[in-house]
Order: sequence, then structure tokens, then C-alpha cells
Amino acid sequence: MRKIKIGLLGFGTVGQAVHELLLENAKYIAERTGFLPVVEKIFVRYVKKKRRVAVDPKLLTTDPNEILENEDIRIVCELMGGVHPTEELILTALEKGKAVVTANKALLAERGEKIFSLVNEKKLYLGFEASVGGGIPIIKTMKEALIGNKIKRIVGIVNGTTNYILTQMSENGMDFSQALRLAQKKGFAEADPSLDLKGIDSAHKISLLASLAFNFFIPFNKVYVEGIDKVELLDLEFARQFGYVVKLLALAKEKKGKHEIMVYPALIPEKHILTSVRFNYNAFYIEGDFVGNMLLYGLGAGGAPTASAVVSDIVEAIEHLTTGKKSLINYPKFDEKRLESIRPIEECEFRYYFRFQAVDKPGVLSKISGILGKHGISIASVVQIGRQKGRGTVPIVMLTHETKEGLVVKALDEISQLDVVQGEVKKIRIFEE
Amino acid sequence: MRKIKIGLLGFGTVGQAVHELLLENAKYIAERTGFLPVVEKIFVRYVKKKRRVAVDPKLLTTDPNEILENEDIRIVCELMGGVHPTEELILTALEKGKAVVTANKALLAERGEKIFSLVNEKKLYLGFEASVGGGIPIIKTMKEALIGNKIKRIVGIVNGTTNYILTQMSENGMDFSQALRLAQKKGFAEADPSLDLKGIDSAHKISLLASLAFNFFIPFNKVYVEGIDKVELLDLEFARQFGYVVKLLALAKEKKGKHEIMVYPALIPEKHILTSVRFNYNAFYIEGDFVGNMLLYGLGAGGAPTASAVVSDIVEAIEHLTTGKKSLINYPKFDEKRLESIRPIEECEFRYYFRFQAVDKPGVLSKISGILGKHGISIASVVQIGRQKGRGTVPIVMLTHETKEGLVVKALDEISQLDVVQGEVKKIRIFEE
Repeated sequence: MRKIKIGLLGFGTVGQAVHELLLENAKYIAERTGFLPVVEKIFVRYVKKKRRVAVDPKLLTTDPNEILENEDIRIVCELMGGVHPTEELILTALEKGKAVVTANKALLAERGEKIFSLVNEKKLYLGFEASVGGGIPIIKTMKEALIGNKIKRIVGIVNGTTNYILTQMSENGMDFSQALRLAQKKGFAEADPSLDLKGIDSAHKISLLASLAFNFFIPFNKVYVEGIDKVELLDLEFARQFGYVVKLLALAKEKKGKHEIMVYPALIPEKHILTSVRFNYNAFYIEGDFVGNMLLYGLGAGGAPTASAVVSDIVEAIEHLTTGKKSLINYPKFDEKRLESIRPIEECEFRYYFRFQAVDKPGVLSKISGILGKHGISIASVVQIGRQKGRGTVPIVMLTHETKEGLVVKALDEISQLDVVQGEVKKIRIFEE
Repeated sequence: MRKIKIGLLGFGTVGQAVHELLLENAKYIAERTGFLPVVEKIFVRYVKKKRRVAVDPKLLTTDPNEILENEDIRIVCELMGGVHPTEELILTALEKGKAVVTANKALLAERGEKIFSLVNEKKLYLGFEASVGGGIPIIKTMKEALIGNKIKRIVGIVNGTTNYILTQMSENGMDFSQALRLAQKKGFAEADPSLDLKGIDSAHKISLLASLAFNFFIPFNKVYVEGIDKVELLDLEFARQFGYVVKLLALAKEKKGKHEIMVYPALIPEKHILTSVRFNYNAFYIEGDFVGNMLLYGLGAGGAPTASAVVSDIVEAIEHLTTGKKSLINYPKFDEKRLESIRPIEECEFRYYFRFQAVDKPGVLSKISGILGKHGISIASVVQIGRQKGRGTVPIVMLTHETKEGLVVKALDEISQLDVVQGEVKKIRIFEE
């Protein structure tokens, strides 16, 4: 049995779980692979910090060069997050020929070009299974299992925080801020949850998945992003009445050579399997031209599930380093020309849910539907609710047929300027097969 | 770009779909891997048969040696099924150093020992993703993605035929034979569906998955098997009243060093994600000590999804052949000693659903519950239904607490001998987290 020495950059929740997994299950991994992965050094900011997982203090260092310049360390796991100095550390490790495993979706989605080019060019190993979907093997599935398929569509529920909040709102009638507080209390939301709530975290993830699906690097700034910060309990209740559940989706679609890469909250038909993805669970619903529809579901965050993904990459890295394996499958390449295939949101077509808060007067519905008609937006169903206690206006809820986003923006802008319509018009897209 | 020549053994539904996939998506695969997989020769029984997919007649041969003895053919895909001469053909291909891809679950589960030993010993490539779960990458997930986990449990809905039938019965009120006929009409059941209905197909699949999960070869004959041929519509309706849905499950569990490998129909709580697996879909619900609970869902059969799996193995085989990659991860080894860890069904514990058809007389319930009590079986809930038209007996339905199978068999045997109980007692196990 051979030992393989590993360096960890960062020792937070995930780093500690990786250390724990390698201590508990190393023998088990060795039995299957013939190699014993051993943590040799851990780069931390503070040696003396209290930590959940006990660690031999001799393993800890505040100098990353003790890992990067140690030739015995063949695999570097970057679990510290952030862009600087993380990017420099990863590039240095790669340039020294080490295999790198990272959970850093933000770095790859925002600045992946340089790292992906380097690993493609020098045939190095870069594992990033842990960067998307925690323990769910979505990267492996996209890269390897679906290699024979043209990917038509990925629909992901990729952020546990927002899914937890929406589930609590929708199933237990909590309002947004109550649900957020509970998520924070349970450790499913950060103290500053804005990256999650605004959809940024989901956009990082779909940027990487879309890059794998379509085989060119789609940076984060090409993703259309809308979060759940404007979703109200009232809309979830109306959605339910129409037979829908609201989820924050991250989507990547291919339609006639054009690509749509987007994050937005959406109404999903109750019977759809994606509505079974509740609380802090994540899922990826994928359509390939041969495989048909497929779903991967599991815990998308947390130390232990993410450690499971990191260790699966560590074993791949060992294969790469010890057997001469050079994966045939390329990392996404930057290709300016292909970026033009990304369809601007204004040109994308959706069905919509609208909620107008209108003064309860005759003729209001006719005015609203007149403007929609003028812009060629066709109404599929409408519900006008009677006057409610404590509100000066009544909600009018509509579902539309498929129509272009650009037209909808214009029409809603016009409608919101009507005297009889108050406040912002709510617009939620509808997901259908 | 380099060409890689492939030979197909068998050209039925799956073989034709593989050929079709490689024609349609080869360029796409080549773009990602640098290799163009090309079908060079196809072994068929009849050259002149009508087929869905058009094929150049020059590719067809009735002599398998045109594939096995052609040194240019590096990869052999066995898609003909059966045990003879399939096993001999696979062994010959392996001995000649070819990579082999197979969809043959029955062969591997019943006689895998010889094939697995050979590939382990000579570090050859054997891909069998297509043998379980159609396009769902369950083999890759078990072998690679979850390598860091101790697998606690796999719960699979792995047979589309039985799942289709149970879904039609449960959701549309069909009886068993109606649902079977519809499944046959739609192509989801074979003309002779007995391997599916009796749970044999599911048992082949769980034998392979359990072997990967627990790292020793668990042959098919070690799997406890019960099919759905005795499930009645009435039981599905009672199950629903208690808040359960009935599915045919294939299970592999580890409990304190003992293993339980079984196939049986089970009551699943309505809210469980496995109940979202409907009609001809398959799913694998897996628990690992680090990854937590995970689900993979998709089309478990059919030409196109299975071709997707075959082609993912073809790309792995190309890696193996061209980059010197020798996967570190072993194929399951035969280990007589470890087979003793499989717990006999009599010693396994379950909760149960019972249905007794009893004469509608005072004292019956007391007699039945008396016998159960004597054997230490504790009742969780009981429903006795009033007299029904056309039946001389009334159903008494009970759910029990957890109890040993061996005790249940004895108690039910005793109960079925009561004068007041008629016909066979129905016993369905309950699945709970």
C-alpha cells in the first residue's frame, strides 16, 4: 500500500470534514484503490483557533509555501474560498505539477479562464466536483456519464439556503424574514445571506455546469440573475392555487444553437419531480438527447457531503498522478465567438405569473388586459380576489401563454403607470417541460 | 483526431441505439476527447433482418471472430444478452486485451466471478454502466463518486416494468392484469414478463450494486427475492389509506457489519421522494456516512438511455487504452468469508402491513391479535372494514411495529390455519427511513 500526501489550503467546515473523512475512511479507500491518502500539512490563518475536528498541531502552518514547496505533497485541496490569494495559490500548485482539488465555484466561474487554460494546456488535474452540488456527483455526470449526449437542458435547484426559505414559506406559511431567521438559526443561511438570496451563488454554479454542457467557458457575468428577495408569501399562496410550487431555478438551455443561462424563481407544476426537492436539498434535472430526463438529488452543501466530493476528486487525482492517466475530456475552453450564442434575456420566451395590486373599481381588468393585448401577450387564466382586510387594493393574478421577456417588460412598465395599479407589479416565470 | 474502432456483439434495441448515437454525436464526442469512436463490425444472427436503424450491410457479420480476431478493434460492446455464448465471447475479448463494455446484468450477477477476477488480475477494462439503471450513472457513482463513503444503504426502484404496473394500479385504479397488458402494449413489458414481475431482474441489479457498495462479489443467488405478482389492487388502496404508496424495492443495507440484500414490494410513506418515481422511471436512493442521502433518477431501460451509458463506458475504455490509465478502483472480488455477513431473511427486521380475509364474526380480531402477541409481534394500527358486496369475508388490515421476519412467518402460518381466516394472508413490508 502506497501513501499519497495531501496538503489542505483552508481548514473551515469543509476542510475539517475532509480531514475527518480521511481519518475515518482511509483504510476503506485503500482497500479499494491500493493508496492511502494522508493529510500532510494544513494551511490556516490561526493555528490556535478552536475547531470541531481535533487535529495534530504539527500539521498546521500559517505559511502556504510549506505545502506548495513540499515536493512530497502531490495533491493540494483548496478549501479556503475567495479570490485572493486563492487564485495565486492554485496557479502556483498547478505550475509545480501538483494535482489540485477545489470547492471554489466563485473563483472558477468568475476567473476560470486562466486556470482551465493552464490545466488543458499542460494536461494537469483539476477536480472541482465539490464546487457545485456538495456531495451530488453532478460534475462527473456532466463531464463523463453524459459525454455521449447533446445536453438540451439543465434545471437546477442549486442553493440550499433559498430552497429552505421557500419551502418553509410555502409549506409552513412563514413569511420571508421569519423563514430566513430560521434558516440562519439552523445553519442553512450565512449571517450575510445576500449572495444566496440574490441568486449569485446559483449563478456561479450554473455558469460551471453550462460550460461543461456546451463545451465552452461561460463566465458568471454572462448569466442572467434574479434572486428570491422579492418573492412574497402571497405569491406562493396564489401559485399553489394554480397548482404550482415556487423554487429558485438555475437553468441552462440549448435551443436551435442558441443558449439561455439564467437564474430566477419559477412556478413549477406540483406534479413535477423538482417539487419533491425540499428544504436544504439540491437537485439537477437534466435532459440529454439520448439519456432523456434525469435527476440527481442530495445535500448540496455542508461539511460532510462536500468532503465526500472532495475525496472522490482526490482519488481521481491519485489515478492521474500514479497511472499516467490523462483524462481525455477537456476542461471548458474560452471561445469569444461562441459567447455570442447566449441569448439576451429580452429575447427569451416564458410563460408568466403576474400579480397586480389594483384599486377595486370597474374597468381595471379591462385596462390591464388591454395593455397586455396591445403588446401581443396572451392571457391563459386570471383570478381577481375580493377585497382583503387591511389592504386598499385587490390582487389580480394572471398566468400568460408563452411570450417574449422584452414585450413583458414594456407592457408591465406601462401597466405600472396606470393610476389604478399600485406598487410594483410581480412577475414570476413559469417552468414547464 | 484519432479513430477508435469498436465491435458490437448484438444489434437489438440497445445495439442499434448505440450505433445511432455514435453516428449522430461522434463529432461532438471527438470535440471533447480528441477521439472519434467508429463502429467497425457488428455481430448479428441474421444479416437480412428488418431493423429500426439503417446500417451499412458491410458492417454486419454472423461470425463473432471477425470482431474478436480483428486487432484493430480495441473495444467490444456486448449487447446481445444471455449467458452462452456471451460469456465465452467476453472472456475471449478480454484475453485478447480488448476493452469490454457490457449491458449484461444477468451474466455478471450470476457468473461475474470469473470475469471480474480476470479484469482485476490483468488490469483490463470492463464497463458495465449500462447493466444497471439504463442511462442513470449509478455504477460510476458507486465506484467513483462515493469512494470516500461507507455505504449504509441503497434503496432502488430498478425495474421499469413493475414500477409502471404499480403506478397504473395505484394512480389509475387498474387491476394487475389490466396494467400488465397496458405495459406490454406500450413496450414497457416483455411478452414473457416473468423475470421482471418475479423480481429477478431487480435482484440481478442489486447484486451488482451491493457488490460495489460493500466491496465483495455478492452473487445473485445470495439475494432474497419477492416479486409483485401477488400484489392486489385492494392492498394498494389500503396502503394509500394509511398514507403509503407501494413500490418494488431492491435494497442493500449494512447494519453492524451484517448485510441485507433483498428485493420485495414495500409500503413507502407518501412524502418520501421515492414515491415521485412513477411509471417507467427508475431511481436509486443511497445513504453514505458522509454524503448523507442522495437520489439518482431517470430512465432505467430503453435503447437510447442505455446507449448513453454504453457510450460513457466507451469513452472510459478509450482513456484506458490510450493513456495508460489503469483505474485504481478494483472490481468486486469473490470472498467466501465475507458472504457469511449476509443476514438470512428470517433474521431481518421490518415493519409489516398484513391483510387477513376473515369471517365477519365476533372474536376474530381477538384470535388474530392473540397469536401475533404470542409471537411478540406488536400492532401499530388496525382497520377492520365492513362487509363488502360479493365477498364472504371482511378484510382486517394491520400495520405492525418492527419485528423479525422469522417470527412473522410463524405467526402468519398459525393464523392462516384458523377456521375464521380464509385464503392467503397478505404480508407487505414497510420501508421507513
